[in-house]
Amino acid sequence: MTQAPISDRARAIADNVERFVRETVAPHEQDPRMGAHGPSDALADELKDKARAANVLTPHILDDGSHLTHAETALVLRKSGLSPLGPVACNTAAPDEGNMYLLGKVGSPEAKERFLKPLVEGRARSAFFMTEPADENGAGSDPSMMQTVAKMDGNHWVINGRKTFITGAEGAKVGIVMAKSDDGACMFLVDLPDPAIRIERVLDTIDSSMPGGHAVITIDNLRVPADQMLGESGEGFKYAQVRLAPARLTHCMRWHGAATRANEIATDYACRRKAFGKPLIDHEGVGFMLAQNLIDLKHTELMIDWCAAVLDTGDLGTAESSMTKTHVAETLFKIADRCVQAMGGTGVSGDTIVEQVFREIRAFRIYDGPTEVHKWSLAKKIKREWSAD
Amino acid sequence: MTQAPISDRARAIADNVERFVRETVAPHEQDPRMGAHGPSDALADELKDKARAANVLTPHILDDGSHLTHAETALVLRKSGLSPLGPVACNTAAPDEGNMYLLGKVGSPEAKERFLKPLVEGRARSAFFMTEPADENGAGSDPSMMQTVAKMDGNHWVINGRKTFITGAEGAKVGIVMAKSDDGACMFLVDLPDPAIRIERVLDTIDSSMPGGHAVITIDNLRVPADQMLGESGEGFKYAQVRLAPARLTHCMRWHGAATRANEIATDYACRRKAFGKPLIDHEGVGFMLAQNLIDLKHTELMIDWCAAVLDTGDLGTAESSMTKTHVAETLFKIADRCVQAMGGTGVSGDTIVEQVFREIRAFRIYDGPTEVHKWSLAKKIKREWSAD
Amino acid sequence: MTQAPISDRARAIADNVERFVRETVAPHEQDPRMGAHGPSDALADELKDKARAANVLTPHILDDGSHLTHAETALVLRKSGLSPLGPVACNTAAPDEGNMYLLGKVGSPEAKERFLKPLVEGRARSAFFMTEPADENGAGSDPSMMQTVAKMDGNHWVINGRKTFITGAEGAKVGIVMAKSDDGACMFLVDLPDPAIRIERVLDTIDSSMPGGHAVITIDNLRVPADQMLGESGEGFKYAQVRLAPARLTHCMRWHGAATRANEIATDYACRRKAFGKPLIDHEGVGFMLAQNLIDLKHTELMIDWCAAVLDTGDLGTAESSMTKTHVAETLFKIADRCVQAMGGTGVSGDTIVEQVFREIRAFRIYDGPTEVHKWSLAKKIKREWSAD
Amino acid sequence: MTQAPISDRARAIADNVERFVRETVAPHEQDPRMGAHGPSDALADELKDKARAANVLTPHILDDGSHLTHAETALVLRKSGLSPLGPVACNTAAPDEGNMYLLGKVGSPEAKERFLKPLVEGRARSAFFMTEPADENGAGSDPSMMQTVAKMDGNHWVINGRKTFITGAEGAKVGIVMAKSDDGACMFLVDLPDPAIRIERVLDTIDSSMPGGHAVITIDNLRVPADQMLGESGEGFKYAQVRLAPARLTHCMRWHGAATRANEIATDYACRRKAFGKPLIDHEGVGFMLAQNLIDLKHTELMIDWCAAVLDTGDLGTAESSMTKTHVAETLFKIADRCVQAMGGTGVSGDTIVEQVFREIRAFRIYDGPTEVHKWSLAKKIKREWSAD
Repeated sequence: MTQAPISDRARAIADNVERFVRETVAPHEQDPRMGAHGPSDALADELKDKARAANVLTPHILDDGSHLTHAETALVLRKSGLSPLGPVACNTAAPDEGNMYLLGKVGSPEAKERFLKPLVEGRARSAFFMTEPADENGAGSDPSMMQTVAKMDGNHWVINGRKTFITGAEGAKVGIVMAKSDDGACMFLVDLPDPAIRIERVLDTIDSSMPGGHAVITIDNLRVPADQMLGESGEGFKYAQVRLAPARLTHCMRWHGAATRANEIATDYACRRKAFGKPLIDHEGVGFMLAQNLIDLKHTELMIDWCAAVLDTGDLGTAESSMTKTHVAETLFKIADRCVQAMGGTGVSGDTIVEQVFREIRAFRIYDGPTEVHKWSLAKKIKREWSAD
Repeated sequence: MTQAPISDRARAIADNVERFVRETVAPHEQDPRMGAHGPSDALADELKDKARAANVLTPHILDDGSHLTHAETALVLRKSGLSPLGPVACNTAAPDEGNMYLLGKVGSPEAKERFLKPLVEGRARSAFFMTEPADENGAGSDPSMMQTVAKMDGNHWVINGRKTFITGAEGAKVGIVMAKSDDGACMFLVDLPDPAIRIERVLDTIDSSMPGGHAVITIDNLRVPADQMLGESGEGFKYAQVRLAPARLTHCMRWHGAATRANEIATDYACRRKAFGKPLIDHEGVGFMLAQNLIDLKHTELMIDWCAAVLDTGDLGTAESSMTKTHVAETLFKIADRCVQAMGGTGVSGDTIVEQVFREIRAFRIYDGPTEVHKWSLAKKIKREWSAD
Repeated sequence: MTQAPISDRARAIADNVERFVRETVAPHEQDPRMGAHGPSDALADELKDKARAANVLTPHILDDGSHLTHAETALVLRKSGLSPLGPVACNTAAPDEGNMYLLGKVGSPEAKERFLKPLVEGRARSAFFMTEPADENGAGSDPSMMQTVAKMDGNHWVINGRKTFITGAEGAKVGIVMAKSDDGACMFLVDLPDPAIRIERVLDTIDSSMPGGHAVITIDNLRVPADQMLGESGEGFKYAQVRLAPARLTHCMRWHGAATRANEIATDYACRRKAFGKPLIDHEGVGFMLAQNLIDLKHTELMIDWCAAVLDTGDLGTAESSMTKTHVAETLFKIADRCVQAMGGTGVSGDTIVEQVFREIRAFRIYDGPTEVHKWSLAKKIKREWSAD
Repeated sequence: MTQAPISDRARAIADNVERFVRETVAPHEQDPRMGAHGPSDALADELKDKARAANVLTPHILDDGSHLTHAETALVLRKSGLSPLGPVACNTAAPDEGNMYLLGKVGSPEAKERFLKPLVEGRARSAFFMTEPADENGAGSDPSMMQTVAKMDGNHWVINGRKTFITGAEGAKVGIVMAKSDDGACMFLVDLPDPAIRIERVLDTIDSSMPGGHAVITIDNLRVPADQMLGESGEGFKYAQVRLAPARLTHCMRWHGAATRANEIATDYACRRKAFGKPLIDHEGVGFMLAQNLIDLKHTELMIDWCAAVLDTGDLGTAESSMTKTHVAETLFKIADRCVQAMGGTGVSGDTIVEQVFREIRAFRIYDGPTEVHKWSLAKKIKREWSAD
């Protein structure tokens, strides 16, 4: 295969995003308003205002509500990821990006106006209430065994259940809640906060870029008007599939950008600093790490682009996104680890973002499906295809 | 980036090559005429005759002498590599493929008629006499320190020197000899065998697919008519560069095909054989290996295609082919190693080609530049580009 | 070699330490008084009081001031490391442990009474002021290029310089300061805090177990009475060598204990939790990780014991401790990484100590000499020994 | 733990073996009588004669028939492995070594006189007929599903079945055949060759050090006198267990010796040869590989010694030998791979034994149980022990 040229529109958007992230966002990485879950609301809003002014807010969704292709999005979202703060600033962060994508695909005109618009405009954050705490039978890890239930009561659904690892729940204004009705899985749109959705606690996790962190939630008699169901009753898993592969892939894009930047920082360090009489990079022990990073950044980029091209054909891309997520997460972690190592004591300190990127990507090997779960499903697919021959 | 569709002509050629290699070539893998350096001459000729009949001999060079693009070649040569015997059968093997490429780019019409034509027609094999034994100062590993000299004597060049790891020298009819004149490095076309080119010994190496093996050679007063110089005097390194990246890349293509086939064999084995009560593939220890192979075959394919696209722009692709060669060789080795492991005792036996592919790819991590040399040059490039910023 | 039995005294001490750490210390791992640099002073003092009561405070130094052998210490300090809080509680933590060792070897009776005694009794913390910030020529990474100077002024030394990564400086009562006099490197004992030793900042690092963290320090006209020099003038590097290998090795011991405990937690998790219909450990993808951990915990233990036995012969153990530190740090990191991965989302959360152990050991691959520096010195040694043959 | 001193007797024997292997055996590594399955019978006999003369034949069995301890054996057998030819020359090779061990433990005085004595004296080779070809249900990999049957017929047992991977069957004079009677698994001692034991074929495998190679065998109405049963009827698996762990461990010892020697060769190469202006070892890319080898040779040695010490307590050492075999095989492979890589083209050629050692150790990762099978059984043990808590 040869590679088609990047579209002019994507290139232009990407250039703007890159300039904005490097020049405007990156200087805030050491901002005292950074915390255990990324920027404070005030800092986030300040950065979004600047992005709006620079015309790079929600850059992958065009004014008419249409989206860039997945291939184009790859280019743009990698640039937004050049700072761990970039996705929040540009409104390309998880889970909002995936939620906007889903609402754009499945939402009714009314739902788009009420729930999608404030997200696209960067005036609200959202959360996706799907994953559940595993009980002793491990139901949590297997979405088909969802325990949260929705029952009709007059013109309302009444929802009860428990959710965990709900990213951004703290502070979100829009929620998409998955629950099981008699028809099967359903999705519901809700305004947040709602007293029936109680945040038990926000987990203290190794990553620190996502506003609101990851919460454990109890849903206790949440009442949702019938017309706030997203799409059709019983189709929840189908919609989850719609969101699944693209959201996995945008994670890859953003973290690819972050690893690219970490590698720039490590390269700069290695070229400037000397040890034992010569620049670090002239030590093969360091130079080879950076050479490997160069190689690894390239094939992870190519995997992202390949998977994006598959999605752009209309394919669900389940296997392709499993392959890509696994490969990208595992490889970016090695890149980040080498950046840390090449920088010695500075690498494990907060003096640069390298230390944070290392922590974030450690979590990424687990978030959106641990590597082992993806390999497990790929092995099943291999067997299935062998049997079909 | 999105990927452009494969050209129809390349797809058609690749399909033919794949069918031929799977149906006609692969059955000869256990042919008793296979030896320590691949097929006997008789077997090689028999296979080439069949390839000619099937219209898949030298499939990447069209009837008018033009070549497929590098991107198209990638598709076709991967298919020719589906058997370790395929490249010999289809006349896409090293070093002939690289030598044909070089002669096509640099040869005069006379040189093409006399030396290139028999190669393209599969009637002769060739050898490329460049690498030299390292003396104690390591000159051998550094091409700029070539010791073989060419001196004018009337209308002839007289060449003296020693070469090593000359693939296919034993049995070749066409030689391209590199030597240093007062102008710098030169290339000479010679008919082989020639008593002045003495094969000291053929090395006993871990790989076993290349006819003629790898020889140590003494060149003792070899007389070459002046008009058998290839191109201009002193331009030898420039021509070597022309051949370098594409030849590296076709190695990647062929071995990618071989690893693909090894993985098919291992997958078939793992789906058929049981251990501890279930098929091997249902053991995650095996299934995960095959899942990883699936992932690794994909990003190595993408790296090859990316580098081919770079070469198709006219770029020399020095860094890109270093990155690709290193990544592909190291990754295919892991794939081959997993295939061996998944097949247990059968994997280390000659009952399938998996064992051979493992050995071949072990050598590939060293041939055409060990991984460490490529990383060394990439680190230099990283530093250079940093300094230029 | 066969292994000699553990001494009864070491076994008894180790058993007490293990019981204390598991029963008394571990419950405080989720204590709200835990912070970015380990326990608050109040919590640390509370734990030390309990250790004193349980007769496991400074358990490797006997009442007569003598030390357990290195081999015995290995057993005891591994147990103290079973909680990241254990070394602080038992007073076996860095840098105090190394400082006590050094003072025990080199200190005069007066120095021991004044500076060592409060450390052994757990009434004070200490800091070792050796490493310096690298200037552009990289002097910092090369101890022989120390920039901090000590000049005689009457009966005092006046010291000026800058230090970095000074663990525990914040809050320490005893300091050992290295500086260069005209005779060469010297060590000075100082009471802390001292206004002439200014903490510029405490680094924000990935690890979080060491009270006081790691500080950047300015020493500005620090005046030290002449009799507070530790040992002889100009012998500073010799004393640093005395401390070097044992201190490296006790790091290995403590982190080995932490990795052992992390593995216990991950094993318990994997045996209890189910996914896809069976306990995690019955999935080979998880079971194999834990099996590898079992293997890796064993050979790292053996390396520690081997190096300890070398030190017990009186050998400086420079190469052996480089080999051991490198191997143990790199391997424990893999163990910790597998523990995180096996536990999925819980693994990257602060709900267990696994996440912290992962971060601590990431830093350990750099602290006390990055892996690459140790390999560099080992390669030099290999060459030296080859030349000597 | 500290390490007990090596016994004087083991040290003396090991020194003799080392001198013999280095001075007398190693020069035959390039002997033209070396073949695909190691030395020809003539060369093997010549070397054994020399070993006998040097008093290093079967050095781990003393004149009174007693064995060195496992710990002592470790020292001696590592030395015998310093050449891939060493174990044959010194009569410490598989499967003879394991068969002698088993006969020494279980054989009657008559069996020892008739079958063991010629083995100890190096006048005969032996084979152990246990492993069977897997049928579609995978019985072969699971020893409890043995298909070979023994039925009583008068005073004889009549045995029928099929075996595979029978090392050394070709050319052996003594056979130990496992088959199932009504009582369960049994072992039988047989003189070889016997027309009822037909060698279908000798496998063509990646390794090449074992005389006779690995054969596929049909046993067709083999009649064995009743008194040639080894031990008791139905106790075959118990006896197999007796042989199992020690035989696994002597494999580790021998290959540790081979890897040690390969590393010496690679080190010598790296210190002598230059590239890009300095000795290879001064390139960190090479020097770090050799440093890692130094580390890896040490902890594999320690694991062997640890497991030997466990066996010396009388423990069966099932888990310990699984851990050790897995760790040693996987690690020695990395060492051998680095040796190959450090030596470039020479590394993949037969000019030194490095290439062979690489191939042998590749097979070792599968022989005596693939790594995955050992990890599978270790995971089971981990779960079992957790349940017992």
